[in-house]
Amino acid sequence: MGNPVSEEMKHKVPGINFRESNPLTGPFYVEGAEPGDTLAIEIKEIKLNRPTAYSRIGPNFGCLTEEVPGRRFLLNEPLKQRFFYWDLNPEKGTGSLDLPGSKLGRVEIELHPFIGSIGVAPRFGRVEMSLTPGEYGGNMDCVETCQGSTLYLPVHAPGGYLVFGDIHAAQGDGELCGVALETTAEVTLKVDVIKGKAIEWPRIEDDNWVMTVGNSRPLMEAFRIAHLEMVNMLEDDYGFERMEGFQVFSQVGRCRVGNVVDPNYTVVAKFPKKYLP
Amino acid sequence: MGNPVSEEMKHKVPGINFRESNPLTGPFYVEGAEPGDTLAIEIKEIKLNRPTAYSRIGPNFGCLTEEVPGRRFLLNEPLKQRFFYWDLNPEKGTGSLDLPGSKLGRVEIELHPFIGSIGVAPRFGRVEMSLTPGEYGGNMDCVETCQGSTLYLPVHAPGGYLVFGDIHAAQGDGELCGVALETTAEVTLKVDVIKGKAIEWPRIEDDNWVMTVGNSRPLMEAFRIAHLEMVNMLEDDYGFERMEGFQVFSQVGRCRVGNVVDPNYTVVAKFPKKYLP
Amino acid sequence: MGNPVSEEMKHKVPGINFRESNPLTGPFYVEGAEPGDTLAIEIKEIKLNRPTAYSRIGPNFGCLTEEVPGRRFLLNEPLKQRFFYWDLNPEKGTGSLDLPGSKLGRVEIELHPFIGSIGVAPRFGRVEMSLTPGEYGGNMDCVETCQGSTLYLPVHAPGGYLVFGDIHAAQGDGELCGVALETTAEVTLKVDVIKGKAIEWPRIEDDNWVMTVGNSRPLMEAFRIAHLEMVNMLEDDYGFERMEGFQVFSQVGRCRVGNVVDPNYTVVAKFPKKYLP
Amino acid sequence: MGNPVSEEMKHKVPGINFRESNPLTGPFYVEGAEPGDTLAIEIKEIKLNRPTAYSRIGPNFGCLTEEVPGRRFLLNEPLKQRFFYWDLNPEKGTGSLDLPGSKLGRVEIELHPFIGSIGVAPRFGRVEMSLTPGEYGGNMDCVETCQGSTLYLPVHAPGGYLVFGDIHAAQGDGELCGVALETTAEVTLKVDVIKGKAIEWPRIEDDNWVMTVGNSRPLMEAFRIAHLEMVNMLEDDYGFERMEGFQVFSQVGRCRVGNVVDPNYTVVAKFPKKYLP
Repeated sequence: MGNPVSEEMKHKVPGINFRESNPLTGPFYVEGAEPGDTLAIEIKEIKLNRPTAYSRIGPNFGCLTEEVPGRRFLLNEPLKQRFFYWDLNPEKGTGSLDLPGSKLGRVEIELHPFIGSIGVAPRFGRVEMSLTPGEYGGNMDCVETCQGSTLYLPVHAPGGYLVFGDIHAAQGDGELCGVALETTAEVTLKVDVIKGKAIEWPRIEDDNWVMTVGNSRPLMEAFRIAHLEMVNMLEDDYGFERMEGFQVFSQVGRCRVGNVVDPNYTVVAKFPKKYLP
Repeated sequence: MGNPVSEEMKHKVPGINFRESNPLTGPFYVEGAEPGDTLAIEIKEIKLNRPTAYSRIGPNFGCLTEEVPGRRFLLNEPLKQRFFYWDLNPEKGTGSLDLPGSKLGRVEIELHPFIGSIGVAPRFGRVEMSLTPGEYGGNMDCVETCQGSTLYLPVHAPGGYLVFGDIHAAQGDGELCGVALETTAEVTLKVDVIKGKAIEWPRIEDDNWVMTVGNSRPLMEAFRIAHLEMVNMLEDDYGFERMEGFQVFSQVGRCRVGNVVDPNYTVVAKFPKKYLP
Repeated sequence: MGNPVSEEMKHKVPGINFRESNPLTGPFYVEGAEPGDTLAIEIKEIKLNRPTAYSRIGPNFGCLTEEVPGRRFLLNEPLKQRFFYWDLNPEKGTGSLDLPGSKLGRVEIELHPFIGSIGVAPRFGRVEMSLTPGEYGGNMDCVETCQGSTLYLPVHAPGGYLVFGDIHAAQGDGELCGVALETTAEVTLKVDVIKGKAIEWPRIEDDNWVMTVGNSRPLMEAFRIAHLEMVNMLEDDYGFERMEGFQVFSQVGRCRVGNVVDPNYTVVAKFPKKYLP
Repeated sequence: MGNPVSEEMKHKVPGINFRESNPLTGPFYVEGAEPGDTLAIEIKEIKLNRPTAYSRIGPNFGCLTEEVPGRRFLLNEPLKQRFFYWDLNPEKGTGSLDLPGSKLGRVEIELHPFIGSIGVAPRFGRVEMSLTPGEYGGNMDCVETCQGSTLYLPVHAPGGYLVFGDIHAAQGDGELCGVALETTAEVTLKVDVIKGKAIEWPRIEDDNWVMTVGNSRPLMEAFRIAHLEMVNMLEDDYGFERMEGFQVFSQVGRCRVGNVVDPNYTVVAKFPKKYLP
């Protein structure tokens, strides 16, 4: 998630601001991609190109308060808005923030840049994928879509219509306050079409893990979708008898919570490659 | 919800079937409706005009199994699909169904026709409102949008863009199996524009109740949205001090669960008119 | 729910106050009740015997804020505590409350007294049933356990160990602020043992409805439990073929939200007696 | 979670079997522990002492089906029960399982033994902590309570009443099928009392992380509790101004899902020690 508009702006220009808040690049028409295929998107490089990043604590935004301006459900007073401007040092791979009220004074953290929003045309209808993740990928805010990973997305329309953006220089699990270290980067992707291979939900692979992604609400449903997809993948792609795959996965699986602030939450189920045939 | 396609159809024609499953009438451009206004839609008449209705138990659909074909999250085997064709007697106001496997043999129930999907352009982006309810109304599958009620919807775009359809001759709370008594009707609406009155979520009014509607997931969030909206309305429109309104509402409120099967669930909070000033 | 202690008291006497907050009568050993039987508890009379009732808005209590003192999960400031003292007129069947800050000045509502907590020994372990509802009944805060209803509870231990209390003179669906019109009454129950009839969850019956109750969290799970139990009951007790019962229930069922503030929430599924064989 | 009884057993001996299913050692009275103190339990060693471990796929148990025998909520047929007997090699630190139906034939995994259930007397009432985790710890099934970690638990009763058991030789995040590699071990703990330091929820510390634990349902509430507790701890114990701590935590936090199969789920929020003052 990037920069939701202030309450003031929202009331002045209804119906348009959220669409402006997370600008994406694309869509790109991928030659040869047809419904029923899968896109394999190798993230070759994410090169941060700006010395700053932005974050924010919003009055009604994030998982420890009401979640979005348009979905209020508490009697409590909203939080006070506060902006945070981080200094980035892409060469050193660090970000720093002044903490005037804290004992520490200033903190320096390691960066781990990734793509916050990356997706294709959805299966049904139209979506604002810069905000909402789904079976098409989209605003997953998932730290695993980083340099060195390959993301697999289902093709629902001829050409796939790949879009991406919303670069995060760093983000904790869940994107608690709803706004990561929002910045920009030069991104290099290599896109292949896997013909005749259909998948239901996004998948990711890196050197150590195969991963399946669930994007839904509530959090438990995203968890279930991701983990059932892994059982399906172990059976279909890796030769596990279904219940034996489920048993081994139950003992060696890892899980990562992408975001719990977007209109759908993101859970990533992970299986170690070393236990695959 | 109407008639989601079979798994077979879905895999043959990806990306299109759900859009065909709940055809709606419109959109109608309402003269004079501007963002920040409210539409007041009086449901003057719903005249059933067909001697049959259709329902279905789907393999992965409804709140007592997995909820939609595209969101599987169980290891269990899907249910067996089964179709049900009800006979309608609109004059008598009844519907009948053969129950060959049951002691009863046949059941006759009272009809209570209502509009399953009715909505306007959403605040952000584009939605498939024939399937998904939201702050714009849409597929609420809410039994309270029946003859004699007035539905209030927020105007997000000039003209509002009113659409409706998905007539249900009857439906239990929650639309358990995901498919009500789906049929057709001649519908008479009277649409007014309330200038300069903005609302956040749909509202409904009938002879006895004022109502606020929350459409979200999980169910508890829809519940909270609807009930917080009522507290807001009691304060803004009916002269209650906020916490006093909340206290009285806590003791006299009623609640209706519209649907728990659509991509968003629907909860209706109700306050008795007799306790309003 | 009755009168949770203040934060101050809690910190002074840890581990004991919640147990004092909802005093119950009993347990009563029911002669002849054995595990595998069912208690049928006819609520013959609830005679309010006090001219006042108490309610409260608590700083972290109720479904529109954090839910209990011991389960904080928001960054927002807590609500301000406020007490409400209602005047009861049991003969007239009304309750009245001053509303100094509201246009109305004072409100008079109809009472509908019911038993907030009524239960038996649980299946496993020990519970604080004055606070937590479960398969044993307990603090369901469910308006349907009122005069004229019969409540069915599963017997898990010889004698059943029936307890009850927590009289509410009135309460809205969900018990929004967590505290109903808390008062006292003389209660007359008639208890029978149904030998050899085991049930999984509480059931209720009145003149018009048969009902099944689910007590769990989240709200959707309580909803599912209650509604699956009704499908089970229609098949086992009323001669419906399972899927035909599910279909008819989907079209005629009603649902009532008991509480959404206790450690488990309560949902009541209702089927009209007029459609039973 | 260990070994829930079969449906058959349950129906024969109601009310007792779950209590036998996860035997624990204790309770131990800790000299000097008073309400308002905190126990610091250093896990010095977990020495597996058995060449086998047991797991199971249960008919209604685990997060990809219905969750427990007593809480059915699906119309689908239950899963088929299947037992898995793992060979353990504690010296080598591995476990092996035959996979007769899979391409792999047999799998060998790395073990990471931990204590599944460890807790103290609860704040209110009595609990079956061998099954249910809470603010007192209990059946958290959390992989972080392993050798080298220190667990902090709130003291609610004089002496604390420490209990533990339910050794898992390995377990994936979430304990998907509800049963880890259940086995036995010799466990060495060092228990200290931190006088006058009260905590609300369990905390854990190892070489790299400080951690806070939330045990609740639904999963999102456990997530919120754990993460709000971390914000509280950063403010109270580490000198962060509250919103600055929240901001930094939002960018560097990690999260671990303990279990999603017990009556309460477990989420662990983690903050890197290297960013503490």
